[in-house]
Amino acid sequence: MSYTTSIKVRFGDIDHAGIAYYPNLYHYLHIAFEEFFEEYLGTPYPSALDNERLGFPTVHVQTDFVAPIRYGDTLDITITVPRLGESSVDLLFKAVRRGDAEACLVSLHTVVAVDMTTLRPRAIPPRYRDLLAACSK
Amino acid sequence: MSYTTSIKVRFGDIDHAGIAYYPNLYHYLHIAFEEFFEEYLGTPYPSALDNERLGFPTVHVQTDFVAPIRYGDTLDITITVPRLGESSVDLLFKAVRRGDAEACLVSLHTVVAVDMTTLRPRAIPPRYRDLLAACSK
Amino acid sequence: MSYTTSIKVRFGDIDHAGIAYYPNLYHYLHIAFEEFFEEYLGTPYPSALDNERLGFPTVHVQTDFVAPIRYGDTLDITITVPRLGESSVDLLFKAVRRGDAEACLVSLHTVVAVDMTTLRPRAIPPRYRDLLAACSK
Amino acid sequence: MSYTTSIKVRFGDIDHAGIAYYPNLYHYLHIAFEEFFEEYLGTPYPSALDNERLGFPTVHVQTDFVAPIRYGDTLDITITVPRLGESSVDLLFKAVRRGDAEACLVSLHTVVAVDMTTLRPRAIPPRYRDLLAACSK
Repeated sequence: MSYTTSIKVRFGDIDHAGIAYYPNLYHYLHIAFEEFFEEYLGTPYPSALDNERLGFPTVHVQTDFVAPIRYGDTLDITITVPRLGESSVDLLFKAVRRGDAEACLVSLHTVVAVDMTTLRPRAIPPRYRDLLAACSK
Repeated sequence: MSYTTSIKVRFGDIDHAGIAYYPNLYHYLHIAFEEFFEEYLGTPYPSALDNERLGFPTVHVQTDFVAPIRYGDTLDITITVPRLGESSVDLLFKAVRRGDAEACLVSLHTVVAVDMTTLRPRAIPPRYRDLLAACSK
Repeated sequence: MSYTTSIKVRFGDIDHAGIAYYPNLYHYLHIAFEEFFEEYLGTPYPSALDNERLGFPTVHVQTDFVAPIRYGDTLDITITVPRLGESSVDLLFKAVRRGDAEACLVSLHTVVAVDMTTLRPRAIPPRYRDLLAACSK
Repeated sequence: MSYTTSIKVRFGDIDHAGIAYYPNLYHYLHIAFEEFFEEYLGTPYPSALDNERLGFPTVHVQTDFVAPIRYGDTLDITITVPRLGESSVDLLFKAVRRGDAEACLVSLHTVVAVDMTTLRPRAIPPRYRDLLAACSK
């Protein structure tokens, strides 16, 4: 199972070279993560953060920017979970420009479940764990 | 008296039309305000917010975008205080591209002193008030 | 007639005060404009810019930030056209947090139709003009 | 030899968790790269892009976010060049919060010299190559 959401590249996210500025692409990946949290894991991320005091800051990122992304492109971003630890999770993002066969962007993020008050790692709650485990491929 | 700081236009702040994306110009104005706070008012803004629990959210903005701003431009941003109320202040920002005679951007911001815990208006503390009053022209 | 689109406030668009950073709210208004262009005016904005060489840079902005906007809010942004000139148009944006009765943000933008090669004003093409005129209320 | 520049964390670059939003940290790294280009390589990056038609898009990124970064922090960002190819270069960014001993952020970027008209790889010009080679440690 995997999760896919779509994001339109925006006018202001382009840089002086006429392609999407890569820090803005990371913003898109975070938006995809927020949608994944709400739609796939079943809880709005603001609610997890504020009510459960549970957050998932990013501690490691590894990204290939394969092809330039332009204004007018729509990105289909798929998330899978190749590794699931006690408190840390690897999330694999693959972004494909609509109409393309190959990914234009592949990024592996390691995020860690933390208590939002202390920012210290904590175990991933079971109901999230089970859904994350089901998303391994 | 007035306060001036300089900001370089950045590669990623350009839009698909090849000029600075106007929301990013507001980010520049806020950076200029943060410098003004620290250098002219004498307190780092993070310290005002976190230690004095004093913030200045923007409630009204009026802006003329007079000329396009491009990558490679350096903006000299001057702040004056045309109006000073009990808890609200008008800040006038004029941005001039280095080498130009005329402003490329003129923006009037009304900001309000608030208690950061309640977000409710409060009187501007006297030591800020005196310095703001001295910056009226 | 008016046009309404919805935008979710994002995790990264919050500032140190815990509310939406106002430059990011202008980014939301521009996204709403892009959706308006594509869905209401019937042409994707990238296509207008690149194929018709027609753009609408913002030359004047007047905004009231009425109430703080937070992570988890969804904004319903309505656009109307209170004034339509030969080459310039006023666009009125009203943003309402879902569930609220009153707008949290009201912004009037004056944009000018320009030739994207010269950045000089040009007349608004008739098919856009007619649709803009129909959106006056 | 290495190159170091300083960047202040800004009010608007914080996220809902109260720490710097990591896409904004990539923006800081790009600003550091722009300063490196101008001050260390001796050419303003806008001039390289527009006059020499030479750009350095990022194709691979590997980052460790070691410690949270907050509003009020100043980052000293050091750039070295651990690998120099015919057209590609590895840039190693280490960011240290002023006052800290250890880096809070370490990122390795692979950038590729391209012709800005075609976006195709080209050899790095000798005068940049020599300076990059001298920055290997």
